[in-house]
Amino acid sequence: MRISELSRTSGVSVPTLKYYLREGLLPPGAPTAVNQAEYSEGHLRRLRLIGILTDIGGLSLRAVGDVLDAIDDDSLTTHQMLGVAHHALGPRDTDDEEPTADVTAARADVDRFLRGRGWRVSPQAPARRSLAQALVTLRRMGRDIDDAVLDRYADVADRLAAQELSRVTGSRSRIAAIESLVVGTVVFEAVLVALRRLAQEHHSARRLSPRTRDGGLVVDK
Amino acid sequence: MRISELSRTSGVSVPTLKYYLREGLLPPGAPTAVNQAEYSEGHLRRLRLIGILTDIGGLSLRAVGDVLDAIDDDSLTTHQMLGVAHHALGPRDTDDEEPTADVTAARADVDRFLRGRGWRVSPQAPARRSLAQALVTLRRMGRDIDDAVLDRYADVADRLAAQELSRVTGSRSRIAAIESLVVGTVVFEAVLVALRRLAQEHHSARRLSPRTRDGGLVVDK
Repeated sequence: MRISELSRTSGVSVPTLKYYLREGLLPPGAPTAVNQAEYSEGHLRRLRLIGILTDIGGLSLRAVGDVLDAIDDDSLTTHQMLGVAHHALGPRDTDDEEPTADVTAARADVDRFLRGRGWRVSPQAPARRSLAQALVTLRRMGRDIDDAVLDRYADVADRLAAQELSRVTGSRSRIAAIESLVVGTVVFEAVLVALRRLAQEHHSARRLSPRTRDGGLVVDK
Repeated sequence: MRISELSRTSGVSVPTLKYYLREGLLPPGAPTAVNQAEYSEGHLRRLRLIGILTDIGGLSLRAVGDVLDAIDDDSLTTHQMLGVAHHALGPRDTDDEEPTADVTAARADVDRFLRGRGWRVSPQAPARRSLAQALVTLRRMGRDIDDAVLDRYADVADRLAAQELSRVTGSRSRIAAIESLVVGTVVFEAVLVALRRLAQEHHSARRLSPRTRDGGLVVDK
């Protein structure tokens, strides 16, 4: 298909497509004439992936580029791909800032907790830092999270991840497995977060607003 | 304490404090002399809440302002406060854009699913739209999520929310209950997301990279 049709089908504007081509996020089409090229289903598929990573994953185009480069690098295993996707999702490591004492303590607690569960997780995994940051936040507010509560969340995460990874079987093609992993990480995270908020509202309605029969929570803005 | 001490204790710079005061995010201190005011523990507490909402919740200062206004509005119940916090967390409703046919269909599916579970959730809850958007994304990629899988995530969310809401008891003060709700929504969401990614890496290491004994996934960047 021509670039105009690629734009119509994907919903991505022609200037944005040209920008993606210039930045190497989208591979060039097959040249058919001077200033004309033919684009394929592969281009559409890649545009959908870019859309997921930016719109739902909240990735910058630079981080998207890292993920796409990794997908195109046949030497990486699917497991390594997951690592690249997680690194792109962040948070970015800010090496230049010296962590404060409570941040260092929380990171040590996270390391100890993960060792205790026997999870095989790289020392560089960005989610270690996110988890430590959440602990720091709670502690600065004079709260804490005891290991029993953390274990309850970890049990939930463990069961979900086991089910999710079982859907990524070795029988599929590498690209399908990778797409499944990346989409799974980003989209099902959004599903989980949305459902948790909806469930919170439901339980809040049941506990905190028992008199409203329909439980409608209307916030006019 | 003076503004300089408030800045030192909170880690928020004096210019930022002055900006918060100007924008009404922080209530004025008690005047002690011309151009001097005394700030309290309440100011510190509010600064920590602002930090959580912006740093971990990713809220804009405008959205933070909405949440703080609601906290200060004694006529709102704790349940209504949760609604305000969820609205601030987004996604924002973009009324001006006509939803495409697949978005409309996904929203109807979400409504049907939530009715089926008997959840009491307001029709305006932003998380309905997030969930619908995730469904649209999956469907545009030629995948879908059947109700059994969605139910599994909903079961997880339901159990978590029930536990979380049970921690917000009526015995505490309104401000403590609200803080607990808001912090719970934002910080434990970060905890859950981080643990899920760590568990994914662990299960990926077990399934996809069985030969590495230590499971280390090192991504040099």
